[in-house]
Amino acid sequence: MTAGRSAAAKTGVTRVVCEQLAPRVGDLTHNKGLALDAVRRALADGADIVVLPELVTSGYVFETAEEARTTAIAVEDSFFSDLSAVLAGTQGVVVLGFCQDGGDTLYNSAAVVDASGVRAVYRKTHLWDRETLFFTPGDRTPPVVDTAHGRIGVLICYDLEFAEMPRRLALAGADLIAVPTNWPLVEHPAGQYPAEIIQAQSAARANGVFIACADRSGVERGQQWTQGTAVIDQFGWLASAVTGPTGPTASGVASASEQRAAADLFLHLSRDKAISPHNDLLGDRRPDIYTQETPLL
Amino acid sequence: MTAGRSAAAKTGVTRVVCEQLAPRVGDLTHNKGLALDAVRRALADGADIVVLPELVTSGYVFETAEEARTTAIAVEDSFFSDLSAVLAGTQGVVVLGFCQDGGDTLYNSAAVVDASGVRAVYRKTHLWDRETLFFTPGDRTPPVVDTAHGRIGVLICYDLEFAEMPRRLALAGADLIAVPTNWPLVEHPAGQYPAEIIQAQSAARANGVFIACADRSGVERGQQWTQGTAVIDQFGWLASAVTGPTGPTASGVASASEQRAAADLFLHLSRDKAISPHNDLLGDRRPDIYTQETPLL
Repeated sequence: MTAGRSAAAKTGVTRVVCEQLAPRVGDLTHNKGLALDAVRRALADGADIVVLPELVTSGYVFETAEEARTTAIAVEDSFFSDLSAVLAGTQGVVVLGFCQDGGDTLYNSAAVVDASGVRAVYRKTHLWDRETLFFTPGDRTPPVVDTAHGRIGVLICYDLEFAEMPRRLALAGADLIAVPTNWPLVEHPAGQYPAEIIQAQSAARANGVFIACADRSGVERGQQWTQGTAVIDQFGWLASAVTGPTGPTASGVASASEQRAAADLFLHLSRDKAISPHNDLLGDRRPDIYTQETPLL
Repeated sequence: MTAGRSAAAKTGVTRVVCEQLAPRVGDLTHNKGLALDAVRRALADGADIVVLPELVTSGYVFETAEEARTTAIAVEDSFFSDLSAVLAGTQGVVVLGFCQDGGDTLYNSAAVVDASGVRAVYRKTHLWDRETLFFTPGDRTPPVVDTAHGRIGVLICYDLEFAEMPRRLALAGADLIAVPTNWPLVEHPAGQYPAEIIQAQSAARANGVFIACADRSGVERGQQWTQGTAVIDQFGWLASAVTGPTGPTASGVASASEQRAAADLFLHLSRDKAISPHNDLLGDRRPDIYTQETPLL
């Protein structure tokens, strides 16, 4: 534990680090090492919470279901005990994506891991495009994990684009939503952040929660990535981001060559949902309205 | 009807114009004229759908409930028949905000008006800050109005920040969500659009709907406005906007001195919710997940 992290803990600051990585598709051994190295590097930087990309141990652009299966691991795999060993003696928490061996089927999953072991596993419920060919969607709402640093909710990539999901996590008390992701690069207008970041910003602001997204670097079988790795504050603003808007880089945002987003956050601020003397982000909800049939006139 | 509009109708294009206005608080007579003039101007510009700000006939920064009451009108008020008369002989549709006389109480309402009269009234359900001192919140979900140009849903200002609301309208078949608004100016980071626009962009993209927001100009009793008037396409991008991000003005976005956002849209494109060979924006929803209790681990 660095002196910096120790001081931070005393003042209630949590250092969140998202590592934007380039795993090799199908190379489980390499990718396990890549993930463990990234966690070691983040811890050396004083990280309390580390987020790694979706499917970081497997890669993403599978050609066949058989290839995906060769990268599948269960939570009993030595990778997770190795990861807990790296975290031994720290209060560090890691959230990362992996290809989960579910026996007859595979899941696109994320694990929350600390020194004590795997705290939770979430199976992605909203599968994107060809993922539907390889994975079975999860059938359980994501958990919120109570940690030394605050309550961490988990979503994976496309999940975040369904506003119902961050809302559920905020209602369950999440301070931070960790989002392992693989965002395929698509064009967007000059002067704008990528659409996925805009949706993350909106989710953070609407719910008064912090959001940490770890995206991909590199090129995998011709697939480029948005490199949208970002830490977003509870007002929806970018505390740290790898990628700026196309066009002039915004002040305060890291250059495109940086492969990490890191920010020191007061996560407990997420628990104040008051946004005016008369308003509360969650208290102002009107579930009675949301379940009414909408008239077509 | 201009030649331009006639041609547009033939090719399926709908011209949406949002007029950013500066009503005088408490001056009902002045504001009625201001609104009618804005509609005439927009029609002359070929508008099919015109959106005016929230509470455009009354102003916003009331000092007392009594003052608010002096500006209240019912749907039987001559203003609405005057507005329908302006629209006579056209297929124009206007969405605007007004202070609604509800007998013992007042509502912050929006009306959808065409040449045939008032098609629908929606009473704002999520009241912002001191609005709670003057208005009773509505208890009905907003309608979707089927028009010659497509299906128009209505939200008012803070309503839009509850993702449940645009979702309801999209599920009910809205092509366009018209949003009369009064967004008080707050600071935002350089290089970023105002937060309210980011939330509107997210809502448009998440639901594959067009969104048209008409905000305020001017200064009212010291209150400045975001001037966030914008027409947003079904991908969440700005088709037209009065205000760019702080810092360099983005390409394709009008200068801050422009007081109108206008765009020619193919509204029927909102009906295609497919976003990959395997994905559908609304079909991918998992209501079974959204209603589950979230475990706290």
